[in-house]
Amino acid sequence: MKIKVGIIGATGYAGAELVRILLTHPMAEISAISSVSFEGKKLSEVYPSYKSLCDMECKTQDEAIEKCDVIFAALPHGLSQELAAQCDALGKAFIDLGADFRLESEDDYKEWYNGEFLDKELHKKAVYGLPELFRDDIKEKRVIANPGCYTTGAPLALAPAVKKGLVSTDGIIIDSKSGVTGAGRKPSQGSHYPELNEGFHAYKAGSHRHTPEIEQTLSRLSGKSVKITFVPHLLPVNRGILSTCYARINPGVTKEQIRKEYEEFYKDEFFIRLLSDGENADIHNIKYSNFCDISLHVDGRTNTLVAVSAIDNMVKGAAGQAIQNMNIIFGLDEKTGLVIVPPAF
Amino acid sequence: MKIKVGIIGATGYAGAELVRILLTHPMAEISAISSVSFEGKKLSEVYPSYKSLCDMECKTQDEAIEKCDVIFAALPHGLSQELAAQCDALGKAFIDLGADFRLESEDDYKEWYNGEFLDKELHKKAVYGLPELFRDDIKEKRVIANPGCYTTGAPLALAPAVKKGLVSTDGIIIDSKSGVTGAGRKPSQGSHYPELNEGFHAYKAGSHRHTPEIEQTLSRLSGKSVKITFVPHLLPVNRGILSTCYARINPGVTKEQIRKEYEEFYKDEFFIRLLSDGENADIHNIKYSNFCDISLHVDGRTNTLVAVSAIDNMVKGAAGQAIQNMNIIFGLDEKTGLVIVPPAF
Amino acid sequence: MKIKVGIIGATGYAGAELVRILLTHPMAEISAISSVSFEGKKLSEVYPSYKSLCDMECKTQDEAIEKCDVIFAALPHGLSQELAAQCDALGKAFIDLGADFRLESEDDYKEWYNGEFLDKELHKKAVYGLPELFRDDIKEKRVIANPGCYTTGAPLALAPAVKKGLVSTDGIIIDSKSGVTGAGRKPSQGSHYPELNEGFHAYKAGSHRHTPEIEQTLSRLSGKSVKITFVPHLLPVNRGILSTCYARINPGVTKEQIRKEYEEFYKDEFFIRLLSDGENADIHNIKYSNFCDISLHVDGRTNTLVAVSAIDNMVKGAAGQAIQNMNIIFGLDEKTGLVIVPPAF
Amino acid sequence: MKIKVGIIGATGYAGAELVRILLTHPMAEISAISSVSFEGKKLSEVYPSYKSLCDMECKTQDEAIEKCDVIFAALPHGLSQELAAQCDALGKAFIDLGADFRLESEDDYKEWYNGEFLDKELHKKAVYGLPELFRDDIKEKRVIANPGCYTTGAPLALAPAVKKGLVSTDGIIIDSKSGVTGAGRKPSQGSHYPELNEGFHAYKAGSHRHTPEIEQTLSRLSGKSVKITFVPHLLPVNRGILSTCYARINPGVTKEQIRKEYEEFYKDEFFIRLLSDGENADIHNIKYSNFCDISLHVDGRTNTLVAVSAIDNMVKGAAGQAIQNMNIIFGLDEKTGLVIVPPAF
Repeated sequence: MKIKVGIIGATGYAGAELVRILLTHPMAEISAISSVSFEGKKLSEVYPSYKSLCDMECKTQDEAIEKCDVIFAALPHGLSQELAAQCDALGKAFIDLGADFRLESEDDYKEWYNGEFLDKELHKKAVYGLPELFRDDIKEKRVIANPGCYTTGAPLALAPAVKKGLVSTDGIIIDSKSGVTGAGRKPSQGSHYPELNEGFHAYKAGSHRHTPEIEQTLSRLSGKSVKITFVPHLLPVNRGILSTCYARINPGVTKEQIRKEYEEFYKDEFFIRLLSDGENADIHNIKYSNFCDISLHVDGRTNTLVAVSAIDNMVKGAAGQAIQNMNIIFGLDEKTGLVIVPPAF
Repeated sequence: MKIKVGIIGATGYAGAELVRILLTHPMAEISAISSVSFEGKKLSEVYPSYKSLCDMECKTQDEAIEKCDVIFAALPHGLSQELAAQCDALGKAFIDLGADFRLESEDDYKEWYNGEFLDKELHKKAVYGLPELFRDDIKEKRVIANPGCYTTGAPLALAPAVKKGLVSTDGIIIDSKSGVTGAGRKPSQGSHYPELNEGFHAYKAGSHRHTPEIEQTLSRLSGKSVKITFVPHLLPVNRGILSTCYARINPGVTKEQIRKEYEEFYKDEFFIRLLSDGENADIHNIKYSNFCDISLHVDGRTNTLVAVSAIDNMVKGAAGQAIQNMNIIFGLDEKTGLVIVPPAF
Repeated sequence: MKIKVGIIGATGYAGAELVRILLTHPMAEISAISSVSFEGKKLSEVYPSYKSLCDMECKTQDEAIEKCDVIFAALPHGLSQELAAQCDALGKAFIDLGADFRLESEDDYKEWYNGEFLDKELHKKAVYGLPELFRDDIKEKRVIANPGCYTTGAPLALAPAVKKGLVSTDGIIIDSKSGVTGAGRKPSQGSHYPELNEGFHAYKAGSHRHTPEIEQTLSRLSGKSVKITFVPHLLPVNRGILSTCYARINPGVTKEQIRKEYEEFYKDEFFIRLLSDGENADIHNIKYSNFCDISLHVDGRTNTLVAVSAIDNMVKGAAGQAIQNMNIIFGLDEKTGLVIVPPAF
Repeated sequence: MKIKVGIIGATGYAGAELVRILLTHPMAEISAISSVSFEGKKLSEVYPSYKSLCDMECKTQDEAIEKCDVIFAALPHGLSQELAAQCDALGKAFIDLGADFRLESEDDYKEWYNGEFLDKELHKKAVYGLPELFRDDIKEKRVIANPGCYTTGAPLALAPAVKKGLVSTDGIIIDSKSGVTGAGRKPSQGSHYPELNEGFHAYKAGSHRHTPEIEQTLSRLSGKSVKITFVPHLLPVNRGILSTCYARINPGVTKEQIRKEYEEFYKDEFFIRLLSDGENADIHNIKYSNFCDISLHVDGRTNTLVAVSAIDNMVKGAAGQAIQNMNIIFGLDEKTGLVIVPPAF
């Protein structure tokens, strides 16, 4: 019997992407979708590309929860805590694509999101769902905090180096470039075609909300308190995040050693593709898929590791990873429904 | 047991797209790929997006033919006739994505392609593989001429009107706009990013090779000899063809009647999505999929039908339709492996 | 002494483009700009590209009118009639980039814009400002209706053929493709980057407001009442309109004759570049400039003239042409300030 | 009397851009153009956007040199040294857009370009033409090494901080993103539209040839030997380079102090636009112009200065700066012909 899936916030971009992938998932079926903005409308009216494939109507949240075994919530930050509590009480799995459960420290949550933990016990039940790094913690959990988009690619690029002590955890710099879908479906001047097209800029340099989440992951891996400099940029493409990560190589560590440790670290990970020397991670090669491509570059002149990762912000950075988490907690092969071939063009 | 598939010309764009779709086809497996330019190389070296999904090596044509039940040939025009003969002799199905078998008239083939029919009997065995229009003819055949990209979308937009006599077959105008992948993988000045980006132009106005092929289809449907004016344009996007087709509505035919005939004509066709009044076919909504979206517009002031179709030139216009033909000749459900959800963005 | 220019609606796209061009016009200076939405703001706050070049503050309409010799109004349709009256009363030239004075027939204006002529005498004083076709009428006028974007390129492509009787005025089809700036600066779902990028569609097929305006021009040139089929499309580029125009060639008219008449017709027109046989008009080649490139193609099989024009919708289709009109009515060389080199990339 | 300008390598992108700008320069005229690949062809045949504006024919190098007062050479690296000697002997000014004279150290030139200094005396006569930093050195010179594209934007972003000792010169990281025109006009797989569009990747991480040139400038400014980590990326846009530069702030230096020093440093520089706090440099705002926009961001959590610059790689990064250098050595106002308004879209 298939897993019954409910999607709350189905008409946002992450919701739409959950639909796209779940429609061909062999072990899950979408049982209900919900949207505040489009209640009563068919999803295919909002996204005509889904015509004849998903003509389901958007229902209320309660209807969606009632019918399903697992709830994906793709909502603006701050709206998931009560929903998670509701699902938890009903014994339903809850996978949150928002930020409400990502930060372990309530202080950090207050500082960066101006919110508070409504139910501290529930937060303890929640787990940070980055499978390649924390798979064992995820298996038994029912409330999953799916990582943010920037916070998946950059940590995956740095994880082996940080965990194995190959680089200094001081002075790490993460220069990320994201496609426009990361900003969501709502039109704004900044996403108006003529003003974004043929443009490129940084934004929230040193002050983006994903900073503490990346630091939390790197700190957990290294056992030290890590502070990073994080600067995101907006790319004139629909999808993809490329993160160029800079870290000083520790004395005595060689290029060959770095490669060997990365290979060892990721050797069983289907979704991580460690590229060969001379290759460059490119968002072109992972579009629409759950892959994270990583390329390694050592600047011997300054003894700097440049680790570059490419993910699809809407798949490995959102919907795909959420489904990967679902697969884990329901005991399925992690790849189920996620062997999506990235188109060559 | 799965159908064993061979792809000759696997490293071109149509070949690469065959690989993308066949990798998730439940009833077929790629048994061999061949490429003259990249013999001995892995496909994933040519297209890094396929890394870990298709690391097969490119072999010779003979190796590919030997191992397989069906051969897809995605070759430059003129190279398929001998190959088809070879496959036919060995009792293997042959699906040609090139032009060698598309035109029934050798005179037309001489005029437009400057070639000749090497084996006239073989040409009689071949069939034009546009399933929605000529499905019954395809079923028993083993040599399939897969239509060109422009020659799928435009005829599908006009077919019901032409077949049912709703419009005059005189003075039909087809104004098509294609994404760049239609020009293939070989770099040229015209496809050099800075010179194509932010540009748009017509090319080969009134003299494109797909003209006689479209005329052949419309003539077959109408029972008359149809001549059209066909003007293709190059769009600065990767994929998709939008064809805006103009035809004079015959006296007495109403807008309602046109819609009704279209609905009737396509009512069982999964891959044709007839849009509602007020909607516009958009290449954005069919990308990566085998769908053909059609919108109908009647200009009452001039009594003109404007039928607009959108297809992915690489899927319904090439690889997807080829696989649809394979499904037909192997007795599979036509949709097998082709229920690809077009991404919402 | 320089002409004192006021721009009302300076923060819209047409307004911004007027500023861009006028800033380097040797015989005019921007004396005042006005904007309802951004009153009190500097233009460079709205468009940071103008920083240090145009840091003028947006004033009220009245302040703008008072200071200036000529007023350009780039306002939503319906807001120009009273303004024109006000300028006329004060003896100031008025160049309207909106639609209020474009249609000579009040019936047409009612039908397509749902408006009426507030002051019929003022409408008689106004002139339709398409210099290459109606230059002599413009010289003495002080109220100029600057043509819409689609209504410049398509008529220029067809004018010689229609005026000289080379083609039938029945059954003319105009298939136009416009860049996104044509839809203005206000964000909307349709101009949201991820939903427009890699997309292409027709809109308002057979029912766009520019239809009667094109017909008015072609009727005036031919001396007959011309009806056209007009279908605009939205291109994923910032700028440019390509219009592919189809007309049946009259019996006995040759390809050579057509070319000769076009050459004769446009021989003194700096802004019209008639391309050679084999060349294709491309929006890439006229970006940011006031040129209209025209290429001619004859489909001998169906005896159809395909005339293709490319203009920058924001320059020859709006601000540039408006300044060309200003040059005419102020007795300057028409090219003054408008010899803008279209970048090669 | 106007300066007579010759352009050698006029059909490459930098050459074409020199033409674009010089065509409207009030004090210079293009007297001859030269191209090996297109000798005998009109420039407007190579770049149809220049039709009727520059229909000059490409001549030999010698013809170009003979006629002109100043020669711009936009050639592949290695071809300029002999040409410079020839011009020098004839008493003609020589402005090299290639790399032959950029590096002061012959060892560096050998290491990074695998070349040698043919005439060491001539190299001593040459000067590095980055006016905002080294204007006084340029005035009297006749052989100008125009900086490379990456090597203009990044040093301008860092110059005040490095010169005034506000940041450590250890551990500087420069993460640059360039538009495609930086790779030139020759088609290649990497610049083939379908493979670049919707893609983004780093290349030559830590090993790009512009590294020693940036280091040379920063070393000269700081008086110390500076080593940097430099990683360029390829953006799917035509024009522009955004450089995100990271440097550790020296103890005791405040955010306010940094801003003040930048303001002081650049207060008389027309082409440098120092943005206000909260604004972000964007390549969208400097396209087609000679401006360098700089935004400053201080990450107080890690005490890091993030200085971001945006230039048009083809203007301030090539042709525009070359003309700026010409203006300097001919005693003209530096802005002459270079007050180009960057379009708002």
